Amino acid sequence: MNSPLRIALAGLGTVGGGVVKLLDENRDLIARRAGRPIEIVAISARDRSRDRGVDLSRFEWVDDTSSLAERDDVDVVVELIGGSDGPAVALVRSAIASGKAVVTANKAMIAHHGLELAGAAERAGTALKYEAAVAGGIPIIKAIREGAAANRIDRVYGILNGTCNYILTEMEENGAAFADVLAEAQRLGYAEADPTFDIDGIDAAHKLAILASLAFGSEIDFASVLTSGIRAVAATDIAHAAELGFRVRLVGLAEVVGDRIHQRVHACLVPLTNPLAKVSGSLNAVVAEGNFVGRLFFEGRGAGEGPTASAVVADLIDIARGEAGPAFSMPSEHLEPIGAGEAGDRRGRYYLRLSVADETGVLAELTATLRDAGVSIDSLIQRGQAESGGVFIAIVSHETSESAVREAIEAMRASGSVLGEPMLMHILDF
Amino acid sequence: MNSPLRIALAGLGTVGGGVVKLLDENRDLIARRAGRPIEIVAISARDRSRDRGVDLSRFEWVDDTSSLAERDDVDVVVELIGGSDGPAVALVRSAIASGKAVVTANKAMIAHHGLELAGAAERAGTALKYEAAVAGGIPIIKAIREGAAANRIDRVYGILNGTCNYILTEMEENGAAFADVLAEAQRLGYAEADPTFDIDGIDAAHKLAILASLAFGSEIDFASVLTSGIRAVAATDIAHAAELGFRVRLVGLAEVVGDRIHQRVHACLVPLTNPLAKVSGSLNAVVAEGNFVGRLFFEGRGAGEGPTASAVVADLIDIARGEAGPAFSMPSEHLEPIGAGEAGDRRGRYYLRLSVADETGVLAELTATLRDAGVSIDSLIQRGQAESGGVFIAIVSHETSESAVREAIEAMRASGSVLGEPMLMHILDF
Repeated sequence: MNSPLRIALAGLGTVGGGVVKLLDENRDLIARRAGRPIEIVAISARDRSRDRGVDLSRFEWVDDTSSLAERDDVDVVVELIGGSDGPAVALVRSAIASGKAVVTANKAMIAHHGLELAGAAERAGTALKYEAAVAGGIPIIKAIREGAAANRIDRVYGILNGTCNYILTEMEENGAAFADVLAEAQRLGYAEADPTFDIDGIDAAHKLAILASLAFGSEIDFASVLTSGIRAVAATDIAHAAELGFRVRLVGLAEVVGDRIHQRVHACLVPLTNPLAKVSGSLNAVVAEGNFVGRLFFEGRGAGEGPTASAVVADLIDIARGEAGPAFSMPSEHLEPIGAGEAGDRRGRYYLRLSVADETGVLAELTATLRDAGVSIDSLIQRGQAESGGVFIAIVSHETSESAVREAIEAMRASGSVLGEPMLMHILDF
Repeated sequence: MNSPLRIALAGLGTVGGGVVKLLDENRDLIARRAGRPIEIVAISARDRSRDRGVDLSRFEWVDDTSSLAERDDVDVVVELIGGSDGPAVALVRSAIASGKAVVTANKAMIAHHGLELAGAAERAGTALKYEAAVAGGIPIIKAIREGAAANRIDRVYGILNGTCNYILTEMEENGAAFADVLAEAQRLGYAEADPTFDIDGIDAAHKLAILASLAFGSEIDFASVLTSGIRAVAATDIAHAAELGFRVRLVGLAEVVGDRIHQRVHACLVPLTNPLAKVSGSLNAVVAEGNFVGRLFFEGRGAGEGPTASAVVADLIDIARGEAGPAFSMPSEHLEPIGAGEAGDRRGRYYLRLSVADETGVLAELTATLRDAGVSIDSLIQRGQAESGGVFIAIVSHETSESAVREAIEAMRASGSVLGEPMLMHILDF
């Protein structure tokens, strides 16, 4: 057996505790697979006294986390502190500068600083790995970086946030309102006390920006991800979608159109024939479409102690085996800065739900407005009483541009016939 | 840009032609990803004159395939000849002996000789890769060898043969008989003129033996795979299964029970809650269950020119990147010879379909026979006229051992009350 791979763990929250447990429980198996043992040498976290359900007294405790980067007895720094900036990125920068490999689960840091850190790791001749940053236990970084590496990939999309998918599928099954399901999810611990990062789509946007770079060979571009969450999804939208043969999912989607990249995180209507429609509860899933392989679909648990630790340790095993190369799908100097497409240019079908005053002629006015904007109607459902006192109208368009639909919405708003905020969702026709 | 990775292609059938097309079409992208170009240096196949729809005149044609192993201008031999023995394995052995890396799509060869070849490659300090051998374009070898490497995996199973899944889902949708769907599939080119390897489960068994070794760290043991195919599946079985909340799928399943490994390829009843139930047409899919990651599900195209070429070239990119290690999930000296479990020891629920004479007292006799064997009945459907002139009875048991059910079947046969061949299928309760 070869010499052990020596690691330092920075951060001992849910994931850090899971990594310790995994390396304990599967110790012998991992040593056989990696060809050498993986050993924790030092640990560091904010609060030494917290009970993490695992014996940490075996490891050297370090109060100054940043000092982990300097230790001669450490081969890999595992960064599980979190946060896009601050101590996490400082530690990673100095660990790489010291020639140490880095494994991280930090999607925000990679989304913001991935290109810089990948370049630094290449210059230092060391590894930067982040399998746990996207879709938890699903080995999707590896699947795109390596498994689908032979393909031109023009589209990658998925369900990248388990909290949102849990909420949407609960709404679907029980006809419940968003706010009620969110409150229940918070009570059960499935949603954070401050759920903003999840339900407003920011967490999914971090992950999508990483997937897009891997898939397209583009420089990571988090700032261009158009992000909205699921707060505006009403029970009536889900019911209308079901009637039309769709399910509502928060989809992170990146695609190349012409010489531009579109990146969006938003609630969409997904046809039942698409595998994402069948992903329920807190599962994550990713679809990648390659020009030779066709459609690949991956599903698994996207968060939690076990799945995330599984991904962190998979990275460690790659490093122990000597099978780790550039952080992205190619050396960072080959990544191209590809510009972002205009949101309005997106062509496709749309779902538009409006609440309108229950008055004669309103429907005629709406349909005329859509016609004038060049939006042709595929189907229209008018039913039920909206909370605002008006009636709900759900419209599915034929293929058109997003700018045409938005133009129609602005015109409706201007005429005063629309009550409250219209809800616009993309329909995925693949 | 670094020096090219120089490959020799042995075998120019569907997959070989696909590899040439892929390396042409995605040439620049692959060079960026791999950090160096991948170039075909020499090609060889049985029939030089056949039109393969791609210009081969650019490459040096070699009549003596075995000479590819000796060439100084070749880094990797890509073996796409096929067959478990004969010229394929001879070429691979000599290529490895010459220190060349080998990439192959040959599931039969790996299932029969994988351990020997992996050991030889390790001793020669070179790579042996075979992503295309299992589930075509799905990067399942990589997902288990690397992505799930941190986990103890106790069960891996999947739909490993697209032809069988196509036939079963056609039967499901149209209520058609096996023989009719097979004939139609042959007419359309979805099934071979001699479909034995596919429909009798041998192709899936090769793939399963490879997955089991990767998942369990066991020496590959193709001889112990209990293999039956789908010839005995009747339209009535599929209808009964649907009524009971199941779909019939040809499942390759390997699991560790105690200190034994069970490997089976056979038609099963899959509950609608299991993702395999939703896999339709010629798609392949694999589920791996890890002790930390939980259930991972992968789906994609399992055969054909594009998906298989995608997997072959992914292996080449790994080699070009210098990211290839031992062929299995661990150095071959660490693989353990784990014995095969007794088929009869399998505990679970069973589906049993019988054709019996339409006579008073037969049902009483059957149920008594089952009771005497210790098999308790969960549900029973008696309906319709069997072709044999009797009536069909479909029984679902409570959990019991396979040996108890087989004992009951033998007793029924002995009593002469059963007409024709009873159909026994495992029910997957996960």
